[in-house]
Amino acid sequence: MQIAIVLFDRFTALDAVGPYEILSRVPDAETVFVAEEAGPVRTDTGSLAITADRSLADVPNPDIVLVPGGPGQSDQMENETLLNWLRAADGSSTWTTSVCTGSLLLAAAGLLEGRRATSHWLALEQLTKFGAEPTGERVVFDGKYVTAAGVSSGIDMGLTLLGRIAGDEHAQTIQLVTEYDPRPPYDAGSPQKAPAHIVDALRARSRFVLT
Amino acid sequence: MQIAIVLFDRFTALDAVGPYEILSRVPDAETVFVAEEAGPVRTDTGSLAITADRSLADVPNPDIVLVPGGPGQSDQMENETLLNWLRAADGSSTWTTSVCTGSLLLAAAGLLEGRRATSHWLALEQLTKFGAEPTGERVVFDGKYVTAAGVSSGIDMGLTLLGRIAGDEHAQTIQLVTEYDPRPPYDAGSPQKAPAHIVDALRARSRFVLT
Repeated sequence: MQIAIVLFDRFTALDAVGPYEILSRVPDAETVFVAEEAGPVRTDTGSLAITADRSLADVPNPDIVLVPGGPGQSDQMENETLLNWLRAADGSSTWTTSVCTGSLLLAAAGLLEGRRATSHWLALEQLTKFGAEPTGERVVFDGKYVTAAGVSSGIDMGLTLLGRIAGDEHAQTIQLVTEYDPRPPYDAGSPQKAPAHIVDALRARSRFVLT
Repeated sequence: MQIAIVLFDRFTALDAVGPYEILSRVPDAETVFVAEEAGPVRTDTGSLAITADRSLADVPNPDIVLVPGGPGQSDQMENETLLNWLRAADGSSTWTTSVCTGSLLLAAAGLLEGRRATSHWLALEQLTKFGAEPTGERVVFDGKYVTAAGVSSGIDMGLTLLGRIAGDEHAQTIQLVTEYDPRPPYDAGSPQKAPAHIVDALRARSRFVLT
């Protein structure tokens, strides 16, 4: 089994590394970071670079495709090299997955039409432009398409998918190995739970970055 | 404010990237990944490389030091270049922090003597060898020393520390931006909660890797 994690300029690191940490522990799987060209790819903050060990062209038939999001996603929405690769890889994949605004790239490639899907809460409604049906769930399965909400939700997606692939016992083992017993010091992780003025401030700010 | 995240061969990616995703959003902070030598550093799985943009020698006085853990930690326990850097950096740091078995490196540098600290649950007792007092808490503050339990706990540590540095409101904003409203599909993230046979199997296996 081969797992391809797609990188692009200004992706959000945790979108990719959260599910990587879980899914790379699928028994006998090879995980490979890919980008349009092999080499280091910078995240949204500019202070972290992850190496794409292979180019998209070098990895045409992964079993699992994982697309992270991040501020750089909007620059990729008309990148036909990436979109064509997504379409072709999806043609033979067992699972096609995304975290955060990565789902907008799957949608732009035409892969989520008529499907239930999720995205970062600030970008959720944009899925409708591509014929997808946004849901407020944290992890959404629709057939082989698995989409996760913002950034950290990729860990929950990874663990849920690991259970489907390798069984509950293996997934629980990896949950224990990664000591994933979360205890956030605040309860502000969703727009339903966060203080309203914080939600409003982010919505106002996002008008300038999400179009 | 400068945040230095230390990399070494076979570190665990999420140990570093979890708190990076949170702490790199401290206002006006510069986050820099460092290693003994600058260049790509491979994680424990071998399938991910993160670039150390600068060498340890290039970053002598960070305000925050963050040390991840991972299987490669044991190879660093007598690396005097790293341990001396940790001692010197700690001499001027505002916060000295670790995730997972990174606390054993802080302990080996002599920085946790007489202090309450934590580590990955499988490595917790090893802290006593260095005069630290292990606790079963997920995130432990003892003065400026902040240690987190296994792998994913660095996200909770990062968010707690962000609140101390930048205030509750900013930390809640970042929790919402990263949509950190965890919903693990299982409740097996600590040895108290996981099925006993899974805990026992990991303890038995760890005898061969943790000494």
